[in-house]
Amino acid sequence: MTVAEGVVVLPILSPGNPFLAQVAAIFAPQLIIKPLSDMGKEITARKEDYSQWYLDLVKKAELAENSDVRGCMVIKPYGFSIWEKMQQGLDKMFKDTGHVNAYFPLFVPKSMFEAEEQNAEGFAKECAIVTHYRLKADPANKGKLIVDPAAELEEPLVVRPTSEAIIWSTYKKWIQSYRDLPILINQWCNVVRWEMRTRLFLRTAEFLWQEGHTAHATADEAVKETRQMLDVYADFAENFMALPVIKGKKSEGERFPGAIDTYCIEAMMQDGKALQAGTSHFLGQNFAKAFGVQFTSKEGKLEPVWGTSWGVSTRLMGALIMAHSDDDGLVIPPRLAPIHVVIVPIFKTEEELKVISEKAEAIAVLLRKAGLSVLYDNRDTQKPGFKFAEHEMRGVPVRIAIGPRDVQNGTVELARRDTKEKSVLNMGEVAARIPGLLEEIQKGLYERALKFREDMTTRVDTYDEMKKVLDGKGGFVMAHWDGTAETEAAIKEETKATIRCIPLDAPDENGKCVYSGKASQRRVAFARAY
Amino acid sequence: MTVAEGVVVLPILSPGNPFLAQVAAIFAPQLIIKPLSDMGKEITARKEDYSQWYLDLVKKAELAENSDVRGCMVIKPYGFSIWEKMQQGLDKMFKDTGHVNAYFPLFVPKSMFEAEEQNAEGFAKECAIVTHYRLKADPANKGKLIVDPAAELEEPLVVRPTSEAIIWSTYKKWIQSYRDLPILINQWCNVVRWEMRTRLFLRTAEFLWQEGHTAHATADEAVKETRQMLDVYADFAENFMALPVIKGKKSEGERFPGAIDTYCIEAMMQDGKALQAGTSHFLGQNFAKAFGVQFTSKEGKLEPVWGTSWGVSTRLMGALIMAHSDDDGLVIPPRLAPIHVVIVPIFKTEEELKVISEKAEAIAVLLRKAGLSVLYDNRDTQKPGFKFAEHEMRGVPVRIAIGPRDVQNGTVELARRDTKEKSVLNMGEVAARIPGLLEEIQKGLYERALKFREDMTTRVDTYDEMKKVLDGKGGFVMAHWDGTAETEAAIKEETKATIRCIPLDAPDENGKCVYSGKASQRRVAFARAY
Repeated sequence: MTVAEGVVVLPILSPGNPFLAQVAAIFAPQLIIKPLSDMGKEITARKEDYSQWYLDLVKKAELAENSDVRGCMVIKPYGFSIWEKMQQGLDKMFKDTGHVNAYFPLFVPKSMFEAEEQNAEGFAKECAIVTHYRLKADPANKGKLIVDPAAELEEPLVVRPTSEAIIWSTYKKWIQSYRDLPILINQWCNVVRWEMRTRLFLRTAEFLWQEGHTAHATADEAVKETRQMLDVYADFAENFMALPVIKGKKSEGERFPGAIDTYCIEAMMQDGKALQAGTSHFLGQNFAKAFGVQFTSKEGKLEPVWGTSWGVSTRLMGALIMAHSDDDGLVIPPRLAPIHVVIVPIFKTEEELKVISEKAEAIAVLLRKAGLSVLYDNRDTQKPGFKFAEHEMRGVPVRIAIGPRDVQNGTVELARRDTKEKSVLNMGEVAARIPGLLEEIQKGLYERALKFREDMTTRVDTYDEMKKVLDGKGGFVMAHWDGTAETEAAIKEETKATIRCIPLDAPDENGKCVYSGKASQRRVAFARAY
Repeated sequence: MTVAEGVVVLPILSPGNPFLAQVAAIFAPQLIIKPLSDMGKEITARKEDYSQWYLDLVKKAELAENSDVRGCMVIKPYGFSIWEKMQQGLDKMFKDTGHVNAYFPLFVPKSMFEAEEQNAEGFAKECAIVTHYRLKADPANKGKLIVDPAAELEEPLVVRPTSEAIIWSTYKKWIQSYRDLPILINQWCNVVRWEMRTRLFLRTAEFLWQEGHTAHATADEAVKETRQMLDVYADFAENFMALPVIKGKKSEGERFPGAIDTYCIEAMMQDGKALQAGTSHFLGQNFAKAFGVQFTSKEGKLEPVWGTSWGVSTRLMGALIMAHSDDDGLVIPPRLAPIHVVIVPIFKTEEELKVISEKAEAIAVLLRKAGLSVLYDNRDTQKPGFKFAEHEMRGVPVRIAIGPRDVQNGTVELARRDTKEKSVLNMGEVAARIPGLLEEIQKGLYERALKFREDMTTRVDTYDEMKKVLDGKGGFVMAHWDGTAETEAAIKEETKATIRCIPLDAPDENGKCVYSGKASQRRVAFARAY
């Protein structure tokens, strides 16, 4: 079948329009001044244990690690530099669609938090609560501290798991008239959700994210905003992360607490499990009513404001890693790679290095002029083989190797990280070739992921077939569903698969629910998921 | 006297080297789609009540406001856009000096927090403490929540007031050998210090900042890093914020808890009070010893690591506002202005607007090509006078007004925000003139602030003189001090002035302490301060 959802046409990326310059290069060579400390051992193969492969990779490429604080991770410099590239790309897209950034408090007083009951109930079980504002010397233990019982807060403060409550209580002060609308605000921040089973990037107690919160005069405008931001996320996933996604609507059971509709983008990982990569919520007037946010319309009527919220998080890092990487390490789409090109000299003597360096540095200058981030890795503490493996582990998209023979011949050896293909190129052609090559890699990764997603999407018409696919190759199963929460719950219970979404552009099609046999008008996407 | 400290030569800013392009323009017109809601009332004059002037200005220019959460502020979009420009400028300087960004947990377990005793003691009294991880339904109050007593944490978590503890406990895992050093990491994040008396930007319970944390093999290298970052801060203050600063060392009593030496930059506000704008700490081996961070040196010896930390915060926003602004509103140095140029059409009829818009848009295109952020304010809901006042309130550095007569004459009216000077310019010259004009404004603001700082710096040789200056014009008082904590405390108690710093390049000079009469080798800078 053809999965039409989420397929977008990549923009024309010609060397004359160097797409990489769209995102300001982070000059990143300092990220790689020290050898990876753990290159000795190989990482677990994906086939052997996908889950362990992921953890090995996150550790070995030095992306993140668990901290001594329960469920909280440390994002290490190389991992963070990829997140920064994501932030830059997204932030520009938000601003280009008329949004501005702001900052709201970390803490939400309990009485404010509980105002929108559905939202409060949805997050109550996973909230970190501040109850005191002081420590004092422990009288029983010199040099140690205890929580000062005299410094208990009158009202406990919730560490934000999401900011609808604090933001809508603020919007109440900002909105009186239709002239004050729309409000189009985004916030980059940390949030805390007390997760019991955590996994680096994918599920952590504290994570970094952006959360957009908009306020509108009409339902129509708010729905358009919700859909626009879903499109922005899909665009980012596809054009920056090289990750095809299905755009869809969540079933009622999977909705954001307090939302009328939750839209999402769903991606397929290499192990056949789905991953929700972003959500955009139409909040209706729920938060406006809970917080008393009303406006006088053009017609002079007092009405509750319409709202949306939307977010993506450091979870995208997990998606990026799992979508493209292989048993040799990370594979990063060029648009998100902190380092685009590494140049490795192959030399035995100082004299050889000197001659090679002259050529390498000239190439680096040209590539940097083209807006690329280039590392000339002339460390004399590591052998070329080690460097090759290390840069593969880190996912640098293009490697250029230059040896004495290359200098003689006026050539270089070019290696692509994605396909591992090597080729020989004349030095004079390098500067002209690389930008186009990076585009090819970017497109190639997208196409590979799309083909994989298509192969991993199966139409089924019976429950047996569905279970067979889920237990077999996995992936998305497109099946009829009767629209009831009972059926959804039963299927989840029996197969561990959830309805990832009701795809937005699934065609109308009369059919029967694979579980209940009741009538259904369209197929939905089931999958086991992260 | 000449205050030589902190005076740096501004880089050559020629139109051929457009300095504004160094910082990627944030395209900000959407920040000004709604009229300021509070333009009717005037703000309090500085002379009348400086403190109220500040609060009025922060409110009226829509920079920030108090939230419903005790001591926490909401940074509004226009205020945040200035902070974003600061972040961009600083982040680039950090990366240019070899630093990388990373992210560490928000929470610090109590046992980790108390490991470095001086640091723990210094912050214990102002820490927000998480004690529980769940809310549950209130059995006595339907729809309400209570802290679930069954979900008490075994160990309380401190919300970071600063991150030395969590970071050094992480560095312990990263550092074994001299090959692992230096570590040069910066983090952008929120921190919480439970302040009792808060003031927007200047002192809030939660604030945004960056904190650099570096680890080194030798004391010498760590001291160099401490001083380098002090220079980076001074450079940023002077070249971006147009704010001259005194670089100095803190007295023992004003040191960061856990540091061996604290360096700082001190600026002078228009009311004669000093403001600490940034600090850089040489931590010696204190944190390394507290957290057991040792490395094997080249010589094979096991030694504790040397550390530094350094930070600036949203407090800089307060400094920026207070340094340059006037009774008509904000004055922002061009390098930090979200909008460099606003173009206001003066028209009565649609036809006039059409003709003016053609010219205005052509000018806007040219200026944007030069890397500037330009707003063409063609709203028909506001009169020009209102717009002028509004853009003055927001501190847009340059205003261009175009009326029908200008179109006839081929001219525009140019107005500078800093000096309020107006001039008439031929349309054809606008694009060539503005970048240079922005440089003039940037330099002019710096020079004005420097002259003010010099006028507000007084050398005194007696305690009476000192008190007279402090009670009179205020400012920095350069006086001899005997170096004892007792004298420092007595002067603070009696005059409310503190030693802002021991200036780094104050000349050796034999003298007598103004308070005790004991011998002193150099003058220090006293002032009342924010």
